[in-house]
Amino acid sequence: MKVTIAVIPGDGIGPEVINQAKKALNAVADTYNHVFIYKEAQMGACAIDETGNPLPEETLKICKKSDAILFGAIGDPKFDNDPTATVRPEQGLLRLRKELGLYCNVRPVKAYDKLIANSPLKEEIIKGTDIAIFRELTGGIYFGIKELSDDKKVAFDGCSYSEDEISRITHLAFKAAQNRRKKVTLVDKANVLETSRLWRKTVTDIAKEYKNVELEFLFVDNAAMQIILNPKQFDVILTENLFGDIISDEASVIGGSIGLLASSSIGDESALFEPIHGSFPQAKGKDIANPLASILSAAMMLEHLGLHEEADAIERAVEKSLSLGITTEDIKINDNFSASTSKVGDFIADYI
Amino acid sequence: MKVTIAVIPGDGIGPEVINQAKKALNAVADTYNHVFIYKEAQMGACAIDETGNPLPEETLKICKKSDAILFGAIGDPKFDNDPTATVRPEQGLLRLRKELGLYCNVRPVKAYDKLIANSPLKEEIIKGTDIAIFRELTGGIYFGIKELSDDKKVAFDGCSYSEDEISRITHLAFKAAQNRRKKVTLVDKANVLETSRLWRKTVTDIAKEYKNVELEFLFVDNAAMQIILNPKQFDVILTENLFGDIISDEASVIGGSIGLLASSSIGDESALFEPIHGSFPQAKGKDIANPLASILSAAMMLEHLGLHEEADAIERAVEKSLSLGITTEDIKINDNFSASTSKVGDFIADYI
Ligand SMILES: CC(C)[C@H](C(=O)O)[C@@H](O)C(=O)O
Ligand SMILES: CC(C)[C@H](C(=O)O)[C@@H](O)C(=O)O
Repeated sequence: MKVTIAVIPGDGIGPEVINQAKKALNAVADTYNHVFIYKEAQMGACAIDETGNPLPEETLKICKKSDAILFGAIGDPKFDNDPTATVRPEQGLLRLRKELGLYCNVRPVKAYDKLIANSPLKEEIIKGTDIAIFRELTGGIYFGIKELSDDKKVAFDGCSYSEDEISRITHLAFKAAQNRRKKVTLVDKANVLETSRLWRKTVTDIAKEYKNVELEFLFVDNAAMQIILNPKQFDVILTENLFGDIISDEASVIGGSIGLLASSSIGDESALFEPIHGSFPQAKGKDIANPLASILSAAMMLEHLGLHEEADAIERAVEKSLSLGITTEDIKINDNFSASTSKVGDFIADYI
Repeated sequence: MKVTIAVIPGDGIGPEVINQAKKALNAVADTYNHVFIYKEAQMGACAIDETGNPLPEETLKICKKSDAILFGAIGDPKFDNDPTATVRPEQGLLRLRKELGLYCNVRPVKAYDKLIANSPLKEEIIKGTDIAIFRELTGGIYFGIKELSDDKKVAFDGCSYSEDEISRITHLAFKAAQNRRKKVTLVDKANVLETSRLWRKTVTDIAKEYKNVELEFLFVDNAAMQIILNPKQFDVILTENLFGDIISDEASVIGGSIGLLASSSIGDESALFEPIHGSFPQAKGKDIANPLASILSAAMMLEHLGLHEEADAIERAVEKSLSLGITTEDIKINDNFSASTSKVGDFIADYI
């Protein structure tokens, strides 16, 4: 199979971890006789530095012409601490999500047995956890109107949702639940927000079409608590953009490391795959960042392209690296040993 | 001292736990020779049932004329699952906060040694945690314009913040930090939201007046993760209304039980004290709800009124009940024994 992949390394540790994902993909291409054509493109702080634009038109064009997009990370502290900056790296990612209509972000959260000891949570709380978080990605307060008054003393963010925006991801969440443990938990703040009430009404209506799936509601504050108290109660979590951002980062503690969490962002015509960790600027260039989330993102991408066996091969290699303790410092399993980013990548590619 | 206290039991388990708080206050009045005059008032689902209004004018009047307000809990599932209801219990509490200008909500999060084993988090992660969360309570998306389009297919929530709203709570947070471990962490989403950028700018400016206090920034998604990974890194957390709602409920898992967390909501002229747990409708009337958060809210109230010794007496009694294992089922310390709501209240009152 011939596949064109847009590769966006991005900022911070993005380039390092994406390189390891490419090694794994190359190993898959060799073993299974595929041709993967990589089209490198820029986005984020590095794109601002070079072109002034966090999402150059060229990048958008490459993404639109590719079969899938593999993305590293975005963000740079020099922008975060400057509230007056008008051009920001994150705008690149947000615009890409919007332009490509990547409305459905899926973040699987699993407790890997080998890593359970690394979690701040007790083993009996997390063992067996298997959650799929469905986060709406192109609506809500992220894309609402933003205003700063002329005297710069009053700021405003608008949050809006339409029935259609809610419907399309809701159907995907229920379909996924049908192939899992048949439960969807809608996380909202319907006791305060009008948009949450529209979510609750729309999702309640759609649920009637999926009679074998149970629907449950949870206020976001309670959900933030329940995810830690008893994560095993969840199967599919469905939620809006901002709540999904918070809840999914929080849930990452369950896995023992955010360095292992991959995600997909799916639209009707495009699909992007990325680790959920950020650009981790402190580690940039040091060859210490954990490449597994990025490698597992590549596996999710293959899965999406229908290459199931190939995706499995990557996942098995990742599990092998964990069981042998060939891991980066952050998830050290073997007390006496930790490997560099590139060594972990090499091991995984060899194993495939 | 003669103190007039507005008492709002509210919904669900509110009345039961507030009764125990009153027992403790009566014991304090006897022992220390004070006169506490309770003015009972209604708010929430029970007020809707009786008057059609979640915050009757009479309640507002009683609150305005009191020295402090003691509140139980609010909310009833019959409203939560009806997205079309136009009158809701929570509106009562939100309007009360707004009318009385209770802009500063403080939620202390501590790991009680006796309860550490109850937490889903590992002992070494939480032992020694001591956080004060300062949540802005009268602004943001809670109080912004809310709209539903005529065809009911598009919903909107506006979020706005002014420099003044940010300033007043920021000063309180920094003053508190000066008497603590001298660190303030601002939690926001400044890489996406205009309001967060105004928070970051305003707080950065004010921080210059408090040279001995360190200021740190954290995006809310990262904060949701850090609170679980390493709660001891935090001293004072300062944040806007919605983020504070989520983060403080999440942080409640650290203490081993939400049934112990009290909070104060302070304005320039009024002050309200309440447990952070909700109305817990499933437990209503069963005499099983944990009254400690409510009793500790009464202690916070005494502290606020300048009655330090009296507040200490309540806190000591609570610690005694924990160390003797005279607790409700939810935080059972002694394997063979748990007490009812009223028994715990009686013990605490007797001990005082
Ligand atoms: C970088 C940032 C804009 C982004 C978001 O908030 O969506 C990130 O946190 C994420 O979750 O992908
Ligand atoms: C009941 C609800 C409106 C309220 C809030 O969201 O503020 C509650 O969750 C709280 O935190 O006091």
